[in-house]
Order: sequence, then C-alpha cells, then structure tokens
Amino acid sequence: MSGNTFGKLFTVTTFGESHGAALGCIIDGCPPGLELSEEDMQQDLDRRKPGTSRHTTQRREADEVKILSGVFEGKTTGTPIGLVIENTDQRSKDYSKISEQFRPAHADYTYAHKYGIRDYRGGGRSSARETAMRVAAGAVARKFLEQRLGIRIRGYLSQLGPIKAEKLDWDQVHQNPFFCPDADKVAEMESYMDALRKEGDSIGARINVVAEGVPPGLGEPIFDRLDADLAHALMSINAVKGVEVGAGFGCIEQKGTEHRDEMTPEGFLSNNAGGVLGGISSGQPIVASIALKPTSSLRLPGRSIDVHGNPVEVITTGRHDPCVGIRATPIAEAMMAIVLMDHYLRHRGQNGDVEVSTPVLGQL
Amino acid sequence: MSGNTFGKLFTVTTFGESHGAALGCIIDGCPPGLELSEEDMQQDLDRRKPGTSRHTTQRREADEVKILSGVFEGKTTGTPIGLVIENTDQRSKDYSKISEQFRPAHADYTYAHKYGIRDYRGGGRSSARETAMRVAAGAVARKFLEQRLGIRIRGYLSQLGPIKAEKLDWDQVHQNPFFCPDADKVAEMESYMDALRKEGDSIGARINVVAEGVPPGLGEPIFDRLDADLAHALMSINAVKGVEVGAGFGCIEQKGTEHRDEMTPEGFLSNNAGGVLGGISSGQPIVASIALKPTSSLRLPGRSIDVHGNPVEVITTGRHDPCVGIRATPIAEAMMAIVLMDHYLRHRGQNGDVEVSTPVLGQL
Amino acid sequence: MSGNTFGKLFTVTTFGESHGAALGCIIDGCPPGLELSEEDMQQDLDRRKPGTSRHTTQRREADEVKILSGVFEGKTTGTPIGLVIENTDQRSKDYSKISEQFRPAHADYTYAHKYGIRDYRGGGRSSARETAMRVAAGAVARKFLEQRLGIRIRGYLSQLGPIKAEKLDWDQVHQNPFFCPDADKVAEMESYMDALRKEGDSIGARINVVAEGVPPGLGEPIFDRLDADLAHALMSINAVKGVEVGAGFGCIEQKGTEHRDEMTPEGFLSNNAGGVLGGISSGQPIVASIALKPTSSLRLPGRSIDVHGNPVEVITTGRHDPCVGIRATPIAEAMMAIVLMDHYLRHRGQNGDVEVSTPVLGQL
Amino acid sequence: MSGNTFGKLFTVTTFGESHGAALGCIIDGCPPGLELSEEDMQQDLDRRKPGTSRHTTQRREADEVKILSGVFEGKTTGTPIGLVIENTDQRSKDYSKISEQFRPAHADYTYAHKYGIRDYRGGGRSSARETAMRVAAGAVARKFLEQRLGIRIRGYLSQLGPIKAEKLDWDQVHQNPFFCPDADKVAEMESYMDALRKEGDSIGARINVVAEGVPPGLGEPIFDRLDADLAHALMSINAVKGVEVGAGFGCIEQKGTEHRDEMTPEGFLSNNAGGVLGGISSGQPIVASIALKPTSSLRLPGRSIDVHGNPVEVITTGRHDPCVGIRATPIAEAMMAIVLMDHYLRHRGQNGDVEVSTPVLGQL
Repeated sequence: MSGNTFGKLFTVTTFGESHGAALGCIIDGCPPGLELSEEDMQQDLDRRKPGTSRHTTQRREADEVKILSGVFEGKTTGTPIGLVIENTDQRSKDYSKISEQFRPAHADYTYAHKYGIRDYRGGGRSSARETAMRVAAGAVARKFLEQRLGIRIRGYLSQLGPIKAEKLDWDQVHQNPFFCPDADKVAEMESYMDALRKEGDSIGARINVVAEGVPPGLGEPIFDRLDADLAHALMSINAVKGVEVGAGFGCIEQKGTEHRDEMTPEGFLSNNAGGVLGGISSGQPIVASIALKPTSSLRLPGRSIDVHGNPVEVITTGRHDPCVGIRATPIAEAMMAIVLMDHYLRHRGQNGDVEVSTPVLGQL
Repeated sequence: MSGNTFGKLFTVTTFGESHGAALGCIIDGCPPGLELSEEDMQQDLDRRKPGTSRHTTQRREADEVKILSGVFEGKTTGTPIGLVIENTDQRSKDYSKISEQFRPAHADYTYAHKYGIRDYRGGGRSSARETAMRVAAGAVARKFLEQRLGIRIRGYLSQLGPIKAEKLDWDQVHQNPFFCPDADKVAEMESYMDALRKEGDSIGARINVVAEGVPPGLGEPIFDRLDADLAHALMSINAVKGVEVGAGFGCIEQKGTEHRDEMTPEGFLSNNAGGVLGGISSGQPIVASIALKPTSSLRLPGRSIDVHGNPVEVITTGRHDPCVGIRATPIAEAMMAIVLMDHYLRHRGQNGDVEVSTPVLGQL
Repeated sequence: MSGNTFGKLFTVTTFGESHGAALGCIIDGCPPGLELSEEDMQQDLDRRKPGTSRHTTQRREADEVKILSGVFEGKTTGTPIGLVIENTDQRSKDYSKISEQFRPAHADYTYAHKYGIRDYRGGGRSSARETAMRVAAGAVARKFLEQRLGIRIRGYLSQLGPIKAEKLDWDQVHQNPFFCPDADKVAEMESYMDALRKEGDSIGARINVVAEGVPPGLGEPIFDRLDADLAHALMSINAVKGVEVGAGFGCIEQKGTEHRDEMTPEGFLSNNAGGVLGGISSGQPIVASIALKPTSSLRLPGRSIDVHGNPVEVITTGRHDPCVGIRATPIAEAMMAIVLMDHYLRHRGQNGDVEVSTPVLGQL
Repeated sequence: MSGNTFGKLFTVTTFGESHGAALGCIIDGCPPGLELSEEDMQQDLDRRKPGTSRHTTQRREADEVKILSGVFEGKTTGTPIGLVIENTDQRSKDYSKISEQFRPAHADYTYAHKYGIRDYRGGGRSSARETAMRVAAGAVARKFLEQRLGIRIRGYLSQLGPIKAEKLDWDQVHQNPFFCPDADKVAEMESYMDALRKEGDSIGARINVVAEGVPPGLGEPIFDRLDADLAHALMSINAVKGVEVGAGFGCIEQKGTEHRDEMTPEGFLSNNAGGVLGGISSGQPIVASIALKPTSSLRLPGRSIDVHGNPVEVITTGRHDPCVGIRATPIAEAMMAIVLMDHYLRHRGQNGDVEVSTPVLGQL
C-alpha cells in the first residue's frame, strides 16, 4: 500500500531508481495463453526511449527489457511476469552539490520530508525513468486487449506549448519526433523546440489518448468508475497536472441538450461523454486528455533552499527533456491499456456469465 | 473490488439506491478517541441537501444520518462506524416507461450492458443520491484533520456555465445558494438559473477545493500520488469530467521558469504545483478544480433507444437539479478530506518514526 | 485495511457491537441476477441463533435480517447488498465493574492496549455476535454456489470436549442441538453439557466443514492458496485456535506413499489433500477442521487485573454459551462459502476463457 | 489479486519458477532508514539453502540475493526494494515424460485445470523454490522488528515423523541439520532419515515458531486478526496442512478454567492463547505450530493419469527433500516476521497516537 502497485486484478508493481542497478516490475494476474516475447514490449519501449531525436534528453539507455518469469514456451502461464531493465548509462558525476540542495518544482523537498532520506542521484525514485516499466507492462495489456477483444489504443501530442495540432491524422503520429498528428505543425514545433533549447527553458504539452473497440460494460459504478481509475492512472504519470475525459472542462459551458450524447438505433450521435457513462464504458471510443507541466530541470538559475534551510541558487546541468510531454505519449497509452485490462478482468470476474439482450450500438 | 470502497487505511464503503430503503456506509480504520456525533455529519449533509433553494431539485429528503456502531460514549472506538440514512421521499410513480428506455447521457444503457438488470427507479445506484454517504464519511475525516492536524478544507463554485467568479471571498461562499465566493456574481447567476429552468435546459459548472495546513510528506510517490488519488476521488463524483491540480491545463503553455515554484527560506514564491510535488504534499495549500457536466435529466425531448433497440423520444419529468454543480461543493470537500485522511494514516504507518531535520517552509 | 472486510472480489465488510444499535454488513461484488430474499439468509441465521436449546446462551435475539439495497424485484443487481440486524435484547445492566476489569482470556486487555478505549458492554466489537453478519453474507455466497455451480457446503460438530462423533450421518446433523452427525453420542453430549453447566465451567469443540462439487481450478497458487485463505477465514472466527485441511496434523506421521492421493481414470483413490493441491482445488471435496477454545465467560472466579493494574477476581455473570463450538457450525460453513465464492470470481476474472482439455476426475 | 502479494502495508510480491531465469520479489512499504545489506538476507537464505546436509535435496543453488533498488548508502529509502536470485543449477533434462503426466499429490493436475498451460520443469511456479524470496523478504522484516522493537523470532522442528523433540534448548537448534532443539533426538532422526532415503519414501514434520517481545496491540480484531493472518501466512507455505496457535487443537478437551490465561500484576500465568486474544497481541510470546506433509516426489512408483486421462505409473527421479519440513524452519520464521511487520505498520497507521494508561503485563 505504499502505492507502487497499480490495478486490482491485473496488477503492476514497479521498483527502481534513476541511477540504481536496474528497474523492474511484476505483472500479476495476466491471463494464461497469451503469446508474449520481449520484442512485444521492446517496440513500445523504443517509442519512449530517450535520445532518439535532438528534442529529447541525450541520456542513452538501451532500455532492453528481460522477461524473468511467467512466460513458458512463448506463452504466458498465468503466473507473475517478472521484468527487468538494467540501467546502463549512469554517468559518474559529482553529486555533492545536489545532495544538499532542493531543486525547485522537483520532489527533492517532499521526499526529504516524507522519508528523511533520499537517493539524490538523478532524482532517484522520483525520476520519470520509472515509467519505462509502465510502458513494458502496458505492452502486455495492450497485446491482450488487441488480440482477444480487438481494442486499439493510440495517443498523440495535441499541443506543444502554444502550438496546437489542428488535424488528427493517425498516420502522421509516428512520422515525427513529437507524436504530432498534424504534419503542418511539425516544422513550427521543431523551431519552437530549437529556440527553447537555446534559451535554456522548457514548456508544457497536452497528450490525447483514445481507445477504440472497448465493449460496453467495463468500469465499476461508484468509486472505481472507469474514468476515475483512468484519472488516477494518468495523473500518476510524472508531470501531469490535469486530466479530462470526453468534453472535459469544455462541459462547464455546455447546456444539457448540447452535452448529452443522443442515441439512435444506428449509434450515438456524439461523444461528449468520452465513452464513459455512469463510470461504465458505453462502447464509444474512450477519449482522455492530459496536461503535462514543463520540465523543472533548467540551466537557468532558480531560487531555492538547501537542506539546512539556507537560500541557494540552483542550476541543473546534465541531460534533460525540455518538454517531458514529447515522450509521454507511449506512457499515457500504457496506463490506458493497464486500466482497461484490469477492468476487463474485474468485469469478467463479477459479471462473466451475464447475458445481455440489449443491442450494442454501432459507432456513428 | 466492485469499487464501492474508497481508501486503503481510512476506508469508506457505501451502499444504497436512489429509491431503495436506505443509503448507508461503513467507515473502517478511523482512529479511536475522536469525539463524534451525528451532528458533526449533519452540518455537511445539510449543505448538500436537496430542496434548500429554488435552484436545486425539489425532492425533499431529511437526510438524517444515524450512527449504528463504532462510537461509544461520544468517541470513536477504532472499530467500524456504520451509518444509515433512510430514504423518505420516494414518490410512488409509474416506472413502466422508464424501465424500457435508456435516458441519453445517463447510466441506464451502460448498467444494462454491465449487469443485464437495473433498478430503474430514479437511476438506482447511479443516482447522485449516493454521494450523501460520502459527505457523511467526509465529515468524520474532516473533523479528525481539523482537530488533530489543523487542516482546513473548503470549496466553492468558481464558474456556473458562462459566469465566472472573479473574487475569492470565503465569507461569501455560504451566503448564497451557489457556494459562490463572489457576491457580485450572485444576482447574475440567479437570473441565469431562472431562465434556464424556464427553458428546460441545464448547465455545467466548475468547483474548486482547497486544503490548507496540510503537512509536507503526505502521498505515495508512484501510482498513489496524492494528486493521483485526488483525481481518482474527484473524478468518481457523479457528472465530473475533468480534474486539475494547481496550474492544471494552464501549465501547457507555461514555461519552466514560470511554472516552477521557487523557494526561499521565507516560503514558496508561488503555487503552480497546487501543493503537490512528485506526488507528495509540499506544505503549500492543496488546490484542485473540477468540471461538472450539465444534468442529463431534461424535459426537452432527446433521441434514444429502448431496451429492444427501437428509437424513442425521452422526456424526463420529475424533480432534478438543472445544475448538478451547485450542490457538488460539499461532496468535493468530502472526497478531499477522505483522501487526505487516508494518506495521513498511510504515511504514519510507514514513516511514523521518521525524524526530519529539513525545515518546513512557511507559506508566503 | 482495519480488517473488517473479507474477500477480494466477493467482499464482506461488517460493523456492529454486541450491545450497539445494530449489526450490519455490505456485500460487494455479488454477481447480478441471483434470486435473493431475506428468507434465504434467515434460515442460516436461525441455525446460529442463540437461545434455541438449553445448551446455548439464553440471550433472546430475533436476529431478523433486513436487505437495504442491492436487490431489485427479487434479484441481485450487482450493486452492494446492505444488510442490518437490529439488536433487540440488550438488557440494561450495571457495567461499572466490568468497565474497570479485564476478563481473563477475553479481548478486554488487548483492546485497551490497541485503542486506549473500548465498548465494554458485552464485549463490544469483540463479541461473537458479529458472526451473525458472516452467516447472513455466507448465505448469499452459498446460494450462488449451489444454484450456479452445484456446490454443497455442510458442517458438523465432530468433537465436544472428550466426546468424539464416530459416525458421519448427515441426516442426523440437524436432529440435535449440537450439529452432531452421530446419533449415538447425543445423549452423552447432553449429560456432559448439563454437568458442565452445573459446574459453571466450559469446554472446547471441533467442527468439520466439507464442500462438495467444487470444480478444479479455484485458488491462487502462492499466498492466496485456497487452503491459506480458508485458514485465514476459519481462524478469524471467534475462539478458533487451530485449522486443518485434509489429513491436517495427521500428515506429520504419514509417509509419502501413504499421504499422496493416487489418481486413476476413475478418480482419486484418497483425499489426504482435503481437496487442495498446490493451493488449487482438485475437484475432490474440500475438507477442513477447526478447534474452538472453551468459552472464557465463567461464573467460576478467575484472577485478573483492573485497568489500573491492581489484582482483581473476575466472575462473569449473565448469559453465555458454555461451549461456543456448538453454534459455530453455521459460521464455519458461511466462511467456507465466502472463500469459495470469492475464489470462483477471482478465477473467472483471470482465467474465464481458458479451455482445458484435461479430463476432470470423477470422485471415488 | 492473483495472490502473489502478501501484506497490506509491508507488502511482499514474488515471481519466479523453479527452472526459470531467476526468482525475485518486491518489498513495498519498508520504513526508511533501516540499515540493510545483502548479507542481512544471506544469513537466512543460507539456513534454508538446499544441499547443506545429506538429508536435504542435493540441488546446489548458490541462492545469492541481489538488491536492485530501495537501498541507498546502506539504508532503506522507503521506496520499493527489488530483489533477485538467479537460478544457477538448472540441470538440462528430458522433460518429455513429465510434461505429459500428472505427478500424484503435486500441483500438476490443478495447474492444468486452472491455467490450461503449465511450466512443468521442476514444478514451475508451484515449486517450493519460491520460498527463497519469502526468506529474503522476511529477513528485512526481522531486522526492523529486532532493531526497532526488540522482537525476536525463532523456530524449530518439534517433530520429524514419529520422533518428537522433548526438550526446547534454543542453543541446539542450529547445531544439527534438522533445526531440532533436543540434542538427544538428533541421532535418532539421522538414522530415521537414512533409512527413509534408502526406502525411497518421505515423511511429514512439525515446526514451531515463537515471537518474543511483541508489544500488545498488534492485530485487527475481526477478519485480519493477528492469528488469522498468521494462519494465512503459514498455510501458504508449500506442504503445510495445519496451523495451530497456542494450545491449538489441544483446546478442544480443555475446560474454560484450564484454558483461560489468568492475569496477575506480575504477568500472565499461562499462555494457552499463544499470545493472541481477540485477534490482538497480548504481549505474551506469539506461538504457532504447523504440520508439513511428506514430500510427494518419490522414486517409488505411484498411480496417476496423463494429460489425456490415461492411467500411468509415475516415478520421480532427481533431487528431492525426503522431508520438506527440515528446511521449513527459516520459511516459517520469515512468514511470522512479515505478518508482525505488516501489523505493526497497520497498527501505527490507525493508532499511532493512542496513549494507553493500562500497564503492560510482564512475562512470567
């Protein structure tokens, strides 16, 4: 209950620090009989991997995942899947300064207050490096959801600082380093990022995630609503400060007649709900959007205090993402996959033999 | 794990349908020795209660809570606190129509798919009436947090459809039926609501919640971040479609130098983080904001289907809130209280004997 | 996590004190569509009820259970089932003495150390009266297991102090006040109990529980083995000091060739395993046995201390079971039912679509 | 919830198969600031290690544990502790026969029914090799309990087949390969085991575990009683078929006046309760006893069926413990340590600020 586990039936427990020996996780509750190899996870890990363009951190991690258990003769056995990724690029560095200072907007100060001790190397456990294991675990969920249920989960960057994607062309998403679905905005984003890097500053971003093919009925109606668990999962990603489902904050100014998604025998006429009604999936696409804050590691000096309470000026050198949002798309997809997988199993546990006579509405 | 429980150490499990015999809940894990009476809960219940102004539903529920266990000689004993509220205003009504139809934007269709059966009277379990128990349970958490830790949790309506509160005057919040902190906007809100009611339509709203006096160190750093659990808790409230912490979606366009809350020995210089860094409370106020969708129960006809898949036109008669956001303030406060209480106990469990030499920053 | 909840998918959370207003529980996760009425639970409650013979406590409780939610038009809806039993026979009594003393072998002393406060009326939360709710919840599980899976769960008293049942005639179990399956021993038990009552002393007992028709595959193989969860469930019943599965402690002196249950195409040749292999049900009957200690409430004086640490002599007056084991059979059956129900849903969640080609062995 | 995690606040999640790449576990919730090195765990692992005498399996595993995270500069940080042990002695072997057969009294048949697939190499996940990780995790709990609370946990073999230890001399326990506390019985045990090995058969055993110095107040009073969680933990060890606390099954024939542990200002006069009253520790030693069945892997042929349901004769060759109980002492100690650790944190979470005026009774 120290919160390193996510999920109730499909559970993912992670460990590892930025500059420790290794990252790892245990996936418990994966159904047996799923074909699974390291390659299935590696694809998603490579999409998240640092150092693949000049717009992300230049730390070079192979991020090679190894399966230690739970897979036999190429298939999952239903027993826990142990995964590890060794940390390889831990530059030797002088930590004497950072060990005494609290970097503004980082977790240094709060870890010190919580635990009285902290691994200050690269942020230790608070580093976003931990999300590599979420991506690996999410890949397992994603594969099951795709193969058994035909669910497809995809994300994209919809806004980089002031620049908004105006088109959603899924084919473009992997054609540029930003996961941007609007080819016309890529050049603008590139020059924006180049200027930002020169300046030494950083910027926020917005990521959207969509799951298509989700059957109606997933989600528990009170506290563990599908959208509540999704909000939990997405807000738990480093740097996320806001989560929306469907119309999101736009619904504040909507009237009821506008917001309600009317139904016809041919399907829903709109999707303001983002695919969730009363906490349960409706069969429409699940649509979520998140806001990521700008990176706090900057070479522009910031005021702070040291561990004794004295004022200091903090400058962060080293290799950092000027926009953490850029690499967040695979992470958001992974968390969406884990939530859907978990709720699918939970639903099957309680309602596995329910026969529903109500027709499933087609998508319009 | 059917999701009717919230919390890990301070756990709240609710039951009850809109038109069933009673609502109830069990609070487990409450520390012993807290002075507690029904009156402590009744105050918050009365703030949420329907029928207190012409702007909310005219259903008249006494909402009188009874303590059935866990309190002895006026104090909590550490054993589970059983609570019930009897439903008194269940108008006899002809449900034959609604039992066959799916109201748009309601949970009717999704419950049918999940369970194959549903209590269609007043929305059954999906009714926001369930939130009465959250308010009762939240009152217990709130009292502990106030008395033992000096934490104060308060909320307000910051936007009603297009009308935004522009001032935050806490004294005003309980002077009007909207929980609006800006006296200058109340008249405008009243006429807006009167027009809306005539029209037969409904509108969304935004609620902000603030917790002051939260000590640094609460929250578990990975999946159960304080903000992630808060997002879970707030998104689980009926009609909520978005959750922000601190700068929220505003951080997308912020630069790092602007967003990062610098620290001086006198305190933090800003609170874009909303009081949470790396998932752990920083000692600054915890600030969250939520978007609530417009009520879906409208007397303006909407297209839908019946249980056999035939097209129908749905008109909702009866007593409904044209803006569910209006009564949501006490609910949001309650969920904030429950989250903080739970994390306080979790933190004490793991780190109860940690001695921290780092100074606590004052508030600026 | 204060431990008033049992189960992971089929969860039972209870509240209530011996002399409080009411006992209650919430059953969460019950599958929808199960026909359920109060009568289904009342049967089992009546079997556990005090005051039905001269051999049990003369406290007269109606133990009438009321369903407050989760059942609609006679069927479960999949939402939480709220239950209450009002306490009716709370004799007004002078508690001044007992409030200051710790009764030997009771929980008075340990509650005082844990919580610093205790409801001393009739043992408060530590009273076995709490088990009434387990029996009610167990009846729901039992009905599902019987109707959907053909599982039958039955218990009996196999030993009362020095007197052992030597025959297992299921038809006899409900023909006597002891749940004794051996008609030849009933007279002996009656005179033993009569003598004991005169003496003012109490005695221990052994209860066996058997579940037939359990399909192979239930139970999670490592920590949540079916037998481990069963041990947890049974040891959590008041007064239980030991739990055995299958051969139990007898296996210490067994050789491997004797203990191992050989298999033939016609079925298993023995059941030393008690129906559980590697923590998973084998399809053989699940067989468990528990030891219950003698009641500690005696009118024979016992040495103890008061809340200030002074020596006192404690005499317990009032109405008590001289052998708590006598009424424990329905409770043990209920806990067995809850465990099996929970594991059935857990198994279906993870492995609901597994196709098994291995033949199911018949019972020999 | 597939049951590979134990504990609520101090949680241990394990993975790994007998013949897979590695075993591992994640300990979550360990308090920060505890000095910890691999050596702390290695001591207990070495006590459990196979191949240390002729009386246990000759499989030679180094069982070297590596800490991958959660420890920084020699102290725990409060973040998850990742551990691995690589499997080194996986003899290449022909598995074609065993892959098609179900060994009697093993989990082969039940795994096949649960998952439809199984790793048949050395029993896969059902192998007792998994308990190495429990021992490693238990060592962490044990160290905390010893250093911070002065709790000492020790176990011993009290019976090997028909041979019972008659003296409890703790100094003897580690002087012989059996963990036998009675030096006079060691020779008898050695010849018994030698004869058994020749014969090709196996035998059961009884292990006792005792925790001294446990403060009063640990344990949650209803389902998660200290003794119920202990029963869960101990019954989850491979081969265990029975668990007793205190007088255990002996209490069946005890009278109340005999069983109840009277109290005087100087202390309790006996410990039939085994240190637990009403599910909560009393301050007396916690005493538990378990029965372990004889090993099922025998070279004496046994009747069984193959995966197609045909009759077969199974002979198990290879390296096996003729008495699994012999190596079980450190495992039982580890599970006791994990249970106490978890309950200490749970107690501190809910009741961390309770002031108790009741005197703590000394031990007599």
